[in-house]
Formats: sequence, C-alpha cells, structure tokens
Amino acid sequence: MDKVRFGIIGVGNQGTYYTGLFEQNLIKNGVLTAVADTSSQRLKRLVEKYPHMKVVCYHDYETILDSGLCDAVLVVTPHYDHAKLVAECLKRGIHVICDKPAGVYTKQVREMNEFAKTCNARFGMMFNQRTNCVYRKMREIVQSGGIGELQRVNWIITDWYRTQAYYNSGGWRATWAGEGGGVLINQCPHQIDLVQWVVGEMPKTVRGFCQYGRWHDIEVEDEVTAYFTYANGATGVFITTTGETPGTNRFEISGTKGKLLCENNKLIWYKNDEDSQVFSSRSENGFARPSFETPTPTAPDVTKITSLP
Amino acid sequence: MDKVRFGIIGVGNQGTYYTGLFEQNLIKNGVLTAVADTSSQRLKRLVEKYPHMKVVCYHDYETILDSGLCDAVLVVTPHYDHAKLVAECLKRGIHVICDKPAGVYTKQVREMNEFAKTCNARFGMMFNQRTNCVYRKMREIVQSGGIGELQRVNWIITDWYRTQAYYNSGGWRATWAGEGGGVLINQCPHQIDLVQWVVGEMPKTVRGFCQYGRWHDIEVEDEVTAYFTYANGATGVFITTTGETPGTNRFEISGTKGKLLCENNKLIWYKNDEDSQVFSSRSENGFARPSFETPTPTAPDVTKITSLP
Repeated sequence: MDKVRFGIIGVGNQGTYYTGLFEQNLIKNGVLTAVADTSSQRLKRLVEKYPHMKVVCYHDYETILDSGLCDAVLVVTPHYDHAKLVAECLKRGIHVICDKPAGVYTKQVREMNEFAKTCNARFGMMFNQRTNCVYRKMREIVQSGGIGELQRVNWIITDWYRTQAYYNSGGWRATWAGEGGGVLINQCPHQIDLVQWVVGEMPKTVRGFCQYGRWHDIEVEDEVTAYFTYANGATGVFITTTGETPGTNRFEISGTKGKLLCENNKLIWYKNDEDSQVFSSRSENGFARPSFETPTPTAPDVTKITSLP
Repeated sequence: MDKVRFGIIGVGNQGTYYTGLFEQNLIKNGVLTAVADTSSQRLKRLVEKYPHMKVVCYHDYETILDSGLCDAVLVVTPHYDHAKLVAECLKRGIHVICDKPAGVYTKQVREMNEFAKTCNARFGMMFNQRTNCVYRKMREIVQSGGIGELQRVNWIITDWYRTQAYYNSGGWRATWAGEGGGVLINQCPHQIDLVQWVVGEMPKTVRGFCQYGRWHDIEVEDEVTAYFTYANGATGVFITTTGETPGTNRFEISGTKGKLLCENNKLIWYKNDEDSQVFSSRSENGFARPSFETPTPTAPDVTKITSLP
C-alpha cells in the first residue's frame, strides 16, 4: 500500500508539532504533502523550521482540500472552525482527524457527528490519550469488572499552570468568541473524554462550579470544580485550574471490588478479595474489611507512557 | 500540685479506651477516680477489664458530679447528651472535656459555648487530632504564609469503611434520633475541625451532596461530597463515606507559594521560590512556572504520629 498522504490545516503550535512528527518519519504509513494556514508568517516559520520537508503550502482550506494532494487531513485550527472544516473534508471524501475539542457548541458537534455518518470518508477525533497504556489499562480493568460496581470517580487535574503571557500570546485565546471557553475546552478535553471512556458511561447529572478569570486577566473559566452522579448513584468530582503550581494530577476510581489510582504516571490497582458490599452484609465485625492485594505490575507495558503536549 | 481527679461519663467503646489510658498511667498529672454509665453491663465489663483500677462506679451523671470525687470530667456519651452534660459539669465548677461531636444542633452547641463563657471551670472539646504533629505542622506552615494565599483545600477521607454489623451494634447508632447524623457527625468531626483549624478560617459557603443509607441499611448519610468557597474565592472539596475500601485519606492545601500534601501519614511541602501569581504576571513564557523545592523533613517530629481510634 502506498503511504497515506496527509495535509494539515492550521500550523500554530500544535500543527507545527504534528509536522515535526512527519518530518521525523514517526507516522507509520503516513506522509505529509501539504499544509494550510491563513497566516503567511506561520507558514514561513514552519518552512524555516523544517527546510528539508517537501510540503506544498496553502493559504486557505479550500485550495488544500481541492488540491488532490491529500487523502487525509488533520484539522488543527482554532476551535470554532473544527466542525466546519471536518464537514468540508468529509464531503470531498477526504478522511479527517480533528484536534480537540470537537467543537464549542454541543449542537454543532452533534450535527458534525450526524453528517459524518452519512459520508464514506473516515472521521476521528484526536483523543490521543486513549492510546496511553495507563488509561487503556484502567479502562480494561473497569470494563472487565476488576473494581466491581462503580462507587466514585475523582480526578484532580490542577497541573495546567499557565502564565498571563500564555493567554496574551494569541488574540483568540481564552475568549468566548475565539476559543469558546477556558481550561475545560482547551486543557481538559482529554481528561473529560477519558473519564467517560474509562468508566464506560456518561454521568447522569453534572453540577459545575466555575470561576471566570480567577487567576488571569481573561474572560473565560480558569478554575473549575464539577460534581457529578452516575445512573447507579456513584459520584464523581473533577477539579481543574490553570492557576496553581506545582499542581496535581491524580485520577482515582473506586468500586466495590477495589480501587484504581493513577498518579505521577503510575497506576496502582487495589484489588479486594471480596466485594465490599457483600462483605459488609455478612461480616459480624463492625470494623473488619476485605483483604486486598496490589497486583504488580498491573500491566507489563504500563511504564511506557505516551506523553504528548 | 496534686493530680487532677478525673471522672468519665459514658464507658462505651471510647470511654473504656480513655479508662485504659488512665490505667496505663499515660495521663500525666491525671488520675481516674470515678465513672458513670446508665448500663450496669458496661460498668461490669469495665471493672472486669481493669480489675486493679480503683474507681467508683455510678449509674447517673448527677451522683458522679455531686460525689466530690471529680475535679474534671470527660463526657463520652451519645451525642445528644453532650451539651447538657457539659453544662451540668460547668455549673458545678467541674472542668470538662467533651468528646466529639460538640452536639447535634448548631443552636444547642452555640448555647453551650455561650454558657461556658459565663463559668469559671475550664471547657474543652476533645479535638485530639489538633495535637497530631502533622496537622500542627500544616497549620503552622499555612498560618505563617508558607503556601502564600490560599487557593484550594481538598480532603478525600474515604477510609472509614464500616460493615452493616457496626451500625447494628447499637440502637442509637446512625439514627437521626439517637446519633443525629452519620459519617459527618460520627467519623469526620476531627477532619471537619482540622480543615477550619489548619486553614485558619471557616468557608464562606458550603454546598453539600449527601446520600442517606447509600451503602448500609441506615437512615443517615454514609456518602458525602461537599464543595465550599472561602472569602478570598479559594475553593474546597471534602469527600467522605463509610462504604469504600480500601479508602483514601489525602489532605491537600494549595496556595500561591506552594502546596501541602498529607497522605499515608506523610507530609510533603512543595515550596515555590516565587509566588505563582506574581510569576504569572511577570513571566514572558506562557508555559514557565516557578521552581519549587520540597524541604525535608518538613518537621523533625512529623514521623511521630498520634494515632487515636
């Protein structure tokens, strides 16, 4: 099979990063043939950074999509254009991978997803953290009943510290009009996706507490606590901010048969020898509890973490 | 000075435990002279357990308080009687230490505190965890500005697993009429006190999410998440349950100059070399952050943990 010919729309920080992966031949069976960006300055910067890459540069999405150079496209633009560009690719039969977030409005994303179902080209979201073997392992354990019935999900992900300079760097950043949100839409889409992907279901209710411009001179949220509940009554808390350092990244899932704790890129599985609810019903000792073990290693491959910016 | 002569009202599990401390001469300058309990069976059990102790046993609080044998009294009865018995001691000029909780109703406790101010005898709550050197150190660091301006408080204290047998053991347990509440009033008063004591102020708002009889056949709460905010906008989350095992006990306080993390009886102090808000304003790098160190040991005495039931 010939290599899949990729195009990238949007070569800001992230698009430039993806370009580098192609340049280093890290994309198996993929080759970068073209890029597009509305900014001549960004295109110039890209070419200067990778002088030996043979890519055609375009200034708008229509000419790159109609160039015939791309079998597939990476959409890496500001958020509001994601849904539109995904549709433009798909309707031309061009496969597309869209960077997070899927979009800014639920309605917009739903329409994009519905439209994608009617097209023959493939559509995927860049949920690259689903390839992280730690999260894959967590999902595998939860889905196979390894922690029993779900009791609690708790993710403290406060290690997104950003300075004011970060927000000053682009006019679209951290605005409702440009980015459509703050830490939830920019930093946390992976974690928000992982919570539902690892647990295997969406919460039934969510109660959010946001503070806007709490730590920065911005109009969107940079400080969030969310409390949620699942259909079975299990509860969850998700805490994030871009205003703290050194922050915390601690993802814990508890169930009747044990607990998963992912912190500092290390996964610990506390595995009860008996369901805690069954034990509670039968034990005559008020303070007794099931024994547990912590199988090690929880996965042979768990040390190999995929770290992406 | 002669030893202070102590009495204990209520010799259930906790009162019996305190008796043992006196019996082992662990109470410096204190001697146990009398105990009282409405249950002959509990008094008999106590005497059998400590056959060499010379204590006078009473069946009601009035005779022990009027016996002249007690300079000070420990109140260790079911919760609803705490406030009443404290007042009965104080009005006789007998010093009193009351076990947690202070009471069941805010009004009742406020009245008790007001009355205590009018008396000459000393009144204290048994907040023994305030003597725990880890929490003392945390308070000392926070109060001395060691973590800068408060940003977040997060205590996950879910290692209170209790079986159904625990709740079946006493008719007053886990009932609104008998105990006045569940995990918040029985297991967590120390932690709830420590949050305000370590931080040095009460939250301005509290939003609680409770489930009643979620994990046990009881009428009170055994599953709680609380979200709170402080006057300066800092936020907090407190999570507790008696339905999970192995649980978590993780107390984290973040500020602009660092973070305190207390887990597994170990305290870690992350100490920034610059206030993160000041750094954010002046840095030209969007992703930079202040350096930090983790002074070790944070306190020479932090390894000596007082573990109490």
